Amino acid sequence: MSTRTVRVSLGKRSYPIRLGRGTLDGVGAAVREHSDATRALVLSVPPVDAHYGARVARSLRAAGFRVKRFLVPDGERSKRLRQAERLYGEMLDQGADRGSTVIVALGGGVVGDLGGFVAATLFRGIPVVQVPTSLLAMVDSSVGGKTGVNVAQGKNLVGAFHQPSLVWIDAATLETLPARQLRAGMAEVVKHAAIWDERLFRRLEREVDALMALDPAILLPVLERNCRIKAQVVSRDEREGGLRMLLNFGHTLGHAVEALRQYRGVLHGEGVSMGMVYAAAHSERLGLAPEGTRERLEALLDRIGLPTALPRFERRAYLRAISVDKKKRDARIHFVALRGIGRAETVPLKPEEILPAGVLGKSR
Amino acid sequence: MSTRTVRVSLGKRSYPIRLGRGTLDGVGAAVREHSDATRALVLSVPPVDAHYGARVARSLRAAGFRVKRFLVPDGERSKRLRQAERLYGEMLDQGADRGSTVIVALGGGVVGDLGGFVAATLFRGIPVVQVPTSLLAMVDSSVGGKTGVNVAQGKNLVGAFHQPSLVWIDAATLETLPARQLRAGMAEVVKHAAIWDERLFRRLEREVDALMALDPAILLPVLERNCRIKAQVVSRDEREGGLRMLLNFGHTLGHAVEALRQYRGVLHGEGVSMGMVYAAAHSERLGLAPEGTRERLEALLDRIGLPTALPRFERRAYLRAISVDKKKRDARIHFVALRGIGRAETVPLKPEEILPAGVLGKSR
Repeated sequence: MSTRTVRVSLGKRSYPIRLGRGTLDGVGAAVREHSDATRALVLSVPPVDAHYGARVARSLRAAGFRVKRFLVPDGERSKRLRQAERLYGEMLDQGADRGSTVIVALGGGVVGDLGGFVAATLFRGIPVVQVPTSLLAMVDSSVGGKTGVNVAQGKNLVGAFHQPSLVWIDAATLETLPARQLRAGMAEVVKHAAIWDERLFRRLEREVDALMALDPAILLPVLERNCRIKAQVVSRDEREGGLRMLLNFGHTLGHAVEALRQYRGVLHGEGVSMGMVYAAAHSERLGLAPEGTRERLEALLDRIGLPTALPRFERRAYLRAISVDKKKRDARIHFVALRGIGRAETVPLKPEEILPAGVLGKSR
Repeated sequence: MSTRTVRVSLGKRSYPIRLGRGTLDGVGAAVREHSDATRALVLSVPPVDAHYGARVARSLRAAGFRVKRFLVPDGERSKRLRQAERLYGEMLDQGADRGSTVIVALGGGVVGDLGGFVAATLFRGIPVVQVPTSLLAMVDSSVGGKTGVNVAQGKNLVGAFHQPSLVWIDAATLETLPARQLRAGMAEVVKHAAIWDERLFRRLEREVDALMALDPAILLPVLERNCRIKAQVVSRDEREGGLRMLLNFGHTLGHAVEALRQYRGVLHGEGVSMGMVYAAAHSERLGLAPEGTRERLEALLDRIGLPTALPRFERRAYLRAISVDKKKRDARIHFVALRGIGRAETVPLKPEEILPAGVLGKSR
């Protein structure tokens, strides 16, 4: 089975991302290569499990694992301590112990983050293999070891760094991804290009339609390029001390929108899309990015079909939501600004400097 | 303020253990040296807080921290995800963020483990300072970065490795420790001597009464020696890949007793005491330790006033309880056996080899 490999270099915690198309049946053998475990717990959500759960389980069984499938409800609200507790209980009741079980997170960001968090904390750490089936998870959340759950006060506020043993990407699984989810994942692809790689950005401007149609001639190279960017950034700054913060481009306002909407009716990538357009406009206002940067970014996101305007909440509601964001350090937030397409930097700003009075329009 | 320092060497995660007597008022300045935080959350339980909470808070305030005291009910049952969730909420509602807050865990093992776990997972890791006030926490749980909570299936099954920034030990706080807790902590002191340091064991045999009376002439050297043993083991094996497992001497049966008693009516150190006597006897049965090893260990524990006989549960109940223990790997458990007083090793054994039929007496 032909796959390409991108390596995440983190010393003892290094691991490969293996990308291919129609490679899902190879996952069992690959997990076997990377694990001494005898049991595999496949964590998924019903819509993904319906398409791929049986195939993944079969592949793992053929590789010698005892397999149990475990489902959580689809959606952000499954990323809670309560679901983590269910999962601990299930695994322990089946006799899991430190060396025997690998978690296989089959699905999008919710499954990857929750499965990763449980793997990080059960017995103070067991292996996890990420098998992302959403575009967002493929290019972003499955790589880098950030795991977490949400609490009432906000998203991903509780978590741990826990690198996976392997990331197995079958691009063919995108065929069953709902179109809205595909668009949302494109936001992170555009983000990588905007902060890091102008050439990729130009390629997206030329070929975004073929990409959205999942044309393998562009899909696989773009996935690989995105994984390489993420792997580079993570290898150089595993714990988000500096460089990795650039990956938060668009996330300050994006998270605020998600929180104000109570994580309902808005996908993470949609929030990031709005947040990126705002951040690009603000980069121009701060005199950091040349005029036209916001316009070019917005045009690409528009073509993808992503929302680009912030929803109409009061300024003070935004300020409150920004202040709980975990990227804040004391009064200042590491706001990610563009220097232009393909170049970003962080600027320490107070919430009211990120969102000055008047920029949301007169009534707010 | 005069303190002795024991260093835990773990590269970037290195930290000092600072020991003294009557040094509690110095904790604020010491935390300030080790942290950029502006806020300190002092986690404690009511009986410890009543004695020392105000002093620690005053010392932290004098060092420039905004201080909030937070209490959980005394006892093992506070080590739950539910209490962790309360603590996350409290800190977030007060505007805690990644760089601003240090957790100061003032108390025994429960407070240290819970505070450490919350520090490990809030914002994927914030600093924690351990201020142990029980003997067990001073010589064992506050050093080494093991944090955790209990779930229905057993103790410490969920957790993370998260090293403290500083361990601040004021031996004078032992004056207010209930006698039963002091005895229980002695079990870990005896454990260190039994697995690592025959000279310390002989000293305990000679001077245990003075030690139990908290005579500073022996108390401080013994605390320091114990911290050094723990620091050495942890520095060489942070994540319990080998050497550190020796610290589990007495814990296989000890944990089983705690679980069978549903963590009620038996202290951790009491379980460990019974477990050590069993493990020593079993080491003799296996032909590893010379005859008389169990007798010598039991005599010392007896003098301290610790229980040495396993409670009367059925053998199959013990076997079940052992099997959920997290030190199990597949069917075999790394059982810690003595080679004699001062020398230990792990032996991979099945539960039924750890507890062969007949050893508990005829009726079981």
